[in-house]
Amino acid sequence: MKVGFIGLGRMGEAMAANLLKAGHGVSVYNRSPAKADALVAAGAVRAASIAEACQSEAVLTMLADDTAVESVVLGDGAILESLPKGALHISHSTISVALSERLAKAHGEAGQAYVSAPVFGRPDVAAAGKLFIVAGGAPESVARCAPLFEAMGQRTFALSEKPEAANLVKISGNFLLACVIESLGEAMALVGKAGIDKSEYLDLLTSTLFGAPVYRTYGNLIANETFSPAGFAAPLGLKDVSLALAAGEALRVPLPLASLLRDRFLSLLAQGGADLDWSAVGGLALRDSGQGKAG
Amino acid sequence: MKVGFIGLGRMGEAMAANLLKAGHGVSVYNRSPAKADALVAAGAVRAASIAEACQSEAVLTMLADDTAVESVVLGDGAILESLPKGALHISHSTISVALSERLAKAHGEAGQAYVSAPVFGRPDVAAAGKLFIVAGGAPESVARCAPLFEAMGQRTFALSEKPEAANLVKISGNFLLACVIESLGEAMALVGKAGIDKSEYLDLLTSTLFGAPVYRTYGNLIANETFSPAGFAAPLGLKDVSLALAAGEALRVPLPLASLLRDRFLSLLAQGGADLDWSAVGGLALRDSGQGKAG
Amino acid sequence: MKVGFIGLGRMGEAMAANLLKAGHGVSVYNRSPAKADALVAAGAVRAASIAEACQSEAVLTMLADDTAVESVVLGDGAILESLPKGALHISHSTISVALSERLAKAHGEAGQAYVSAPVFGRPDVAAAGKLFIVAGGAPESVARCAPLFEAMGQRTFALSEKPEAANLVKISGNFLLACVIESLGEAMALVGKAGIDKSEYLDLLTSTLFGAPVYRTYGNLIANETFSPAGFAAPLGLKDVSLALAAGEALRVPLPLASLLRDRFLSLLAQGGADLDWSAVGGLALRDSGQGKAG
Amino acid sequence: MKVGFIGLGRMGEAMAANLLKAGHGVSVYNRSPAKADALVAAGAVRAASIAEACQSEAVLTMLADDTAVESVVLGDGAILESLPKGALHISHSTISVALSERLAKAHGEAGQAYVSAPVFGRPDVAAAGKLFIVAGGAPESVARCAPLFEAMGQRTFALSEKPEAANLVKISGNFLLACVIESLGEAMALVGKAGIDKSEYLDLLTSTLFGAPVYRTYGNLIANETFSPAGFAAPLGLKDVSLALAAGEALRVPLPLASLLRDRFLSLLAQGGADLDWSAVGGLALRDSGQGKAG
Repeated sequence: MKVGFIGLGRMGEAMAANLLKAGHGVSVYNRSPAKADALVAAGAVRAASIAEACQSEAVLTMLADDTAVESVVLGDGAILESLPKGALHISHSTISVALSERLAKAHGEAGQAYVSAPVFGRPDVAAAGKLFIVAGGAPESVARCAPLFEAMGQRTFALSEKPEAANLVKISGNFLLACVIESLGEAMALVGKAGIDKSEYLDLLTSTLFGAPVYRTYGNLIANETFSPAGFAAPLGLKDVSLALAAGEALRVPLPLASLLRDRFLSLLAQGGADLDWSAVGGLALRDSGQGKAG
Repeated sequence: MKVGFIGLGRMGEAMAANLLKAGHGVSVYNRSPAKADALVAAGAVRAASIAEACQSEAVLTMLADDTAVESVVLGDGAILESLPKGALHISHSTISVALSERLAKAHGEAGQAYVSAPVFGRPDVAAAGKLFIVAGGAPESVARCAPLFEAMGQRTFALSEKPEAANLVKISGNFLLACVIESLGEAMALVGKAGIDKSEYLDLLTSTLFGAPVYRTYGNLIANETFSPAGFAAPLGLKDVSLALAAGEALRVPLPLASLLRDRFLSLLAQGGADLDWSAVGGLALRDSGQGKAG
Repeated sequence: MKVGFIGLGRMGEAMAANLLKAGHGVSVYNRSPAKADALVAAGAVRAASIAEACQSEAVLTMLADDTAVESVVLGDGAILESLPKGALHISHSTISVALSERLAKAHGEAGQAYVSAPVFGRPDVAAAGKLFIVAGGAPESVARCAPLFEAMGQRTFALSEKPEAANLVKISGNFLLACVIESLGEAMALVGKAGIDKSEYLDLLTSTLFGAPVYRTYGNLIANETFSPAGFAAPLGLKDVSLALAAGEALRVPLPLASLLRDRFLSLLAQGGADLDWSAVGGLALRDSGQGKAG
Repeated sequence: MKVGFIGLGRMGEAMAANLLKAGHGVSVYNRSPAKADALVAAGAVRAASIAEACQSEAVLTMLADDTAVESVVLGDGAILESLPKGALHISHSTISVALSERLAKAHGEAGQAYVSAPVFGRPDVAAAGKLFIVAGGAPESVARCAPLFEAMGQRTFALSEKPEAANLVKISGNFLLACVIESLGEAMALVGKAGIDKSEYLDLLTSTLFGAPVYRTYGNLIANETFSPAGFAAPLGLKDVSLALAAGEALRVPLPLASLLRDRFLSLLAQGGADLDWSAVGGLALRDSGQGKAG
């Protein structure tokens, strides 16, 4: 399939590389062109503009946030203006429910197809082609994505014909991850202050009831207070929790855990944590109890 | 080994039955004697009193709460007065850190050995002999428990020489479970109000990042709002969260998630939920968002 | 002074009436023209458009929210395009810090003066000319407002040369009021469930430590659960708490009480409380404790 | 009237002095006898024991907490054993609802009268004889207290025939004060980080909607971060918030603000704040936002 790929951060680059490997024709575009070099060396075509990347059956986007997506999709000379009628925009970014609704409406009016397809998985998972993909959109559009999704992910979940539902699921998933971080932070502050070894404690947890990898991954980061370098930076954590709260506000759903997490992230950022991994919010419970490296 | 077993609720009965099956000599005692009938039929000796059950190498207790344990251990004619010097008290109950400290001191002064050994696992897990046992106490005392623990559990974690550390670990584990319940309740309130099927959503979660059985177990209960009959009743949930808060207060460890959960449990109980499963706190987020059977 | 007044809700109408009484020439505009009738009968000039109301030394606006202000100030044919160079826009609305910053910038570039002057006081206070006015802006611009402020208020506080600082102060004041509501709701749930008469309790509070009128006003509403008709409707309360949270997010200031209040307002609105007074959030503590008319 | 007074801390000493001034015969007792010296010099009789102080028509107690009251009332040779039948115990201490219930029962069984009469007011208010007294007990017993209350306070509120109701009211009042502290801390963190002068801001608040002295008192302490010396120490604040939570737990009343405050107090104490005034919890919002002397 002939596709364009816009947004070559660590996630996007890995995803585009897997499309290439699977034999798709990929033209790549990134605002800082140097990020495309490795992919071009691997066989991708360098697009000089968003418009050029849109001369495809489908254009995939993997961008940082709402602002970036608005600019790349709705700006002058951007995707909405450039994508041929009938072609497909697959948006992988973690964006707000509200923006996804706007994109769905705009693409619909322009005669373009739109699938919202946020992913679960960190860059190493993306590189391995093992992402979980949550797809929202018209069934025939989602069906057209299948060969691409197969190249990038291990499984696709098509939950709803509404594209924005996929965004909500992604947002809620990140909210649940943040809950794991906060709860582990509090539990470790409690047992740690009683003199129990935090790593042995974590081993007990993950060997018994909490066998999911997320407990091991985040538990280790918190037990060792290893919050740098960031796999997923704290400001992105704040962004996602805020997206959950915004969705909740629009739907009239109070989310007290998300409120608590938002305050934690703000506290972390106010105190110099902007470059840390988002699991550093789990370290705040240690600090508040007079423990921790920063205690 | 010749042991006494006091406290034959659903957990205690299953544990005593496994001791019998493993060939240990078990004399059983319960305040309501009828609860001992099945075990006696299976080969246990009926003890007429706590004191009689204490004529053993070790006495095991599995009781509801601090009040019951205080009465059975520290009351007139109770374990402390009845257990021979050098014999062992193994306390499996989920009790407070403070009471466990008192028991350790009292048994030590009486020349008795004391191991605190709370367990993770519901009655069906106990019946299968697959409990996880967290043991705290002097290493030589914990070692003496090995043939008993092997009969009742699949693995023992000996984290600390302080008996009360085992209680803290157990309490913190139940706190983490309650966090899973609350976070799933909020996430389902959010996606449910957007029209996403909650069971499909849960399937996605547990197939991807949240593969631990606790997510599936509690997620199903919340998705279907099946809070009755109670596997673990709401008042016990409140008890355990309160134990976490009490331990945190003594150690000067703020636990904002536990505070939130305590308020949730009180709200549930104030509104008639005393007979429901503790996962019903996950239904409060549905109610607060104007959804749910009680919405 | 010759002024225009845009936005004739209950607050705006009372404020414009006081300007008239003080001898100022007032041309009035409202989207629904009928709201201007009484003022015109009292001597005001009916402006046919925003632009017409802007043919003045100063234009005052008193509008519902950011959306209304954006439209009336920044829209086609709106204040920014219509107000003469050197003339003054006095914005009394409770709007976001971010929008107030945008207005300051836009007016500055257009050579117009801008004073942000939100007010404290309900409609009866406005009618009595007893508002408290918080003014932010260049000192010479604020000075020009003096004869107008004297007609409408009992005292002006000029806290900062930055217009948006006045908005932040107003927002924080409403946040503090909401805290009073929530704390009274919880205290009354507690003493009420113990059988203490809530009105006698309130009398004790306001006769001793909590003598401020806000405690009496909101305390009575909560004690009697008289949440209708709304003096200040619940959705406006949510708006103001959300403005506080948005300002806190921009400044990296966690506000856990505001987070808690936001969830309370969402819960209230999700359960049919959109037409109630914002003090109805104080009734949620009653409900959660199994009391209250809706208990 | 001939009375005994037990507990001569700063509050108790000032209250006993006012009884003396009003002409009552006062025998005084304190665990550390030196604290009685000034009162003895002013005409009080030094009691050598609790029993001696009980040889009176009434014995008044003003003690630190539940533990002290339990010991002085229910211990060996303590008030319950020493007070004549028909004599009166007036308890001014801020104690738990549960303990007050136990005292009422015990005194009733001993044929003694019991009035629970906690007070509002700091030591300077006590010295001026201007306390507010909340009295709970049988009307005839409360009536007997009148000449004493007149000497110590400016007004008595008799809310309930149940002594423990007075304790609940006192506890709830301190909870409301703590809410004022927390809300001012958050509001000042917000406006302070925007560059607004906190003292000018406080002046605005107290000149407009928040005219109660508690806003001025605590607002000044927070604005200036003057948390030492302690007028009311942080551990006492934690004690009172915990009493509110305990009462709420017994009554099944969730109190989310009290939960939040409890966590704040624990955080303060965990980080070395045990000697600070309880208003220091208002400084935590400053710290969490990266401001404050400790920021």
